[in-house]
Amino acid sequence: MIIIGGTATNGIDESLSKILSIPLVKVESKIFPDGESYIRVPSSIRNEEVLLVQTTDYPQDKHLIELFLIAETIRDLGAKKLTAIVPYLAYSRQDRRFKDGEAVSIKTILHILGEVGVNGLVVVEPHKPEELSYFKGELKIVHPYHQISRKIKEIVEDPFILAPDRGALDRARKIAEEISAQYSYIEKERDRTTGEVRIKEAPNINLKGKDVVLIDDIISTGGTIVQATRLAYSLGARSVTAVAVHLLLVGDAKERLREAGVKTLIGTNTINVKDKDIITIDVSQSIALSL
Amino acid sequence: MIIIGGTATNGIDESLSKILSIPLVKVESKIFPDGESYIRVPSSIRNEEVLLVQTTDYPQDKHLIELFLIAETIRDLGAKKLTAIVPYLAYSRQDRRFKDGEAVSIKTILHILGEVGVNGLVVVEPHKPEELSYFKGELKIVHPYHQISRKIKEIVEDPFILAPDRGALDRARKIAEEISAQYSYIEKERDRTTGEVRIKEAPNINLKGKDVVLIDDIISTGGTIVQATRLAYSLGARSVTAVAVHLLLVGDAKERLREAGVKTLIGTNTINVKDKDIITIDVSQSIALSL
Repeated sequence: MIIIGGTATNGIDESLSKILSIPLVKVESKIFPDGESYIRVPSSIRNEEVLLVQTTDYPQDKHLIELFLIAETIRDLGAKKLTAIVPYLAYSRQDRRFKDGEAVSIKTILHILGEVGVNGLVVVEPHKPEELSYFKGELKIVHPYHQISRKIKEIVEDPFILAPDRGALDRARKIAEEISAQYSYIEKERDRTTGEVRIKEAPNINLKGKDVVLIDDIISTGGTIVQATRLAYSLGARSVTAVAVHLLLVGDAKERLREAGVKTLIGTNTINVKDKDIITIDVSQSIALSL
Repeated sequence: MIIIGGTATNGIDESLSKILSIPLVKVESKIFPDGESYIRVPSSIRNEEVLLVQTTDYPQDKHLIELFLIAETIRDLGAKKLTAIVPYLAYSRQDRRFKDGEAVSIKTILHILGEVGVNGLVVVEPHKPEELSYFKGELKIVHPYHQISRKIKEIVEDPFILAPDRGALDRARKIAEEISAQYSYIEKERDRTTGEVRIKEAPNINLKGKDVVLIDDIISTGGTIVQATRLAYSLGARSVTAVAVHLLLVGDAKERLREAGVKTLIGTNTINVKDKDIITIDVSQSIALSL
């Protein structure tokens, strides 16, 4: 077995190589002057089982095309089996036709992955696990809840876990149970056209003196978390920590979260988080356990 | 029959709609804050024959992913046949393994196109026509030589057609014959690692008083054309015009060409050429004739 590190790995390829004691080969890559990617797999992999690590955070389209190029090359070079570890899977929020005629983007991406030779797929915290059924090979879903729970326990004094919407409740509950904390959720609504979010109903809870921990799968523009943070303070919270598996933090999201009163931001290395003041959890251990 | 204009068309969708008298529907698209593309085909196309126009110039990876999303959506919406008109086909210069383990990028791109539902493919001036055999559907290759010849005749007084390397000779000869001009070619060498180009052997020709027209398929960094321009002047040329079907003009290529003495630059709308001082030929007429 061999691990191949793609063009976007955030160190997960190296961690997995150490944890699993499997040799690592890094893909050779460059960007041509015109913007096209060059890919080379500099190792003989004939009849090998290959674990390819390639996340698809921003720039998603470049990372996806590179994933397709690497995967088909691995197949063409004669690998016996190819498992793609895609810690953050782009386009997973467009998982159905919300309006007639829309692309079901995640279907196309997963369909292509199968066609370029990916036999197995490992995804960390997919937006909706059921959407992954568009992938026809072997599937593994990684929930890095244990690693997140440990980090929360380590740095938050009296945590109250709050899911920023009903879809995030199951995740919040599991993490709350692991650290024996209370939990609840907020009802929100999203306008599909404007993307705007508003709180539908405030939960009937008292957060007086609590260190509220908001947990979501993705924080993108931060709109949902900003509103949830304000609500948490209005219900008496002492502090707010925001946690997301995939911390996209688009544009000035980080500043907006800070302004709203988020004291601590926690993410994972499924995304290339560059800010030094964000706590980044390495999810490699959770991935290794799933393999 | 219906024409669908993708996210990158440079007006070719509109021209084709007029020339062929076929209705045009523009894809609805936007970029989400995180950088992902949103695609919607806002029209019923069940049992229709669809001509989809989408070029894949810079940013190539975004335009390719959008092409894949649009194509699969068109198929899923029940189109009878899908022909993709891809005026500039990205990744065509990586058409084989120059070194062991390299991705054959154009193979992967053409393979994916077939898998997302493209039955027919129309490409303008592919880098090597034989590489298109990786596409398993119906294939049409468009050489806009007639349109280029007319433009040269219109604006160059006493043209001498010069191919900047042997691979470009056939194209140069065809265009020269159409306008009854003399032609020749230059022998060049390219270092595969550095990408550097040098002239191997100067042709034994006298260009005294001639208006030299250098014609290539692609001008990217302009290195080849800069060297050919200098050579043309050293052989007595009065002026140099540079023509390419696909005028990528990466970085400061335009400035370098001007400095070397290129008086006029001619390209086509397979690429989004934004400069007002570049003559841009609309290739829609040539595409229409091929359909």
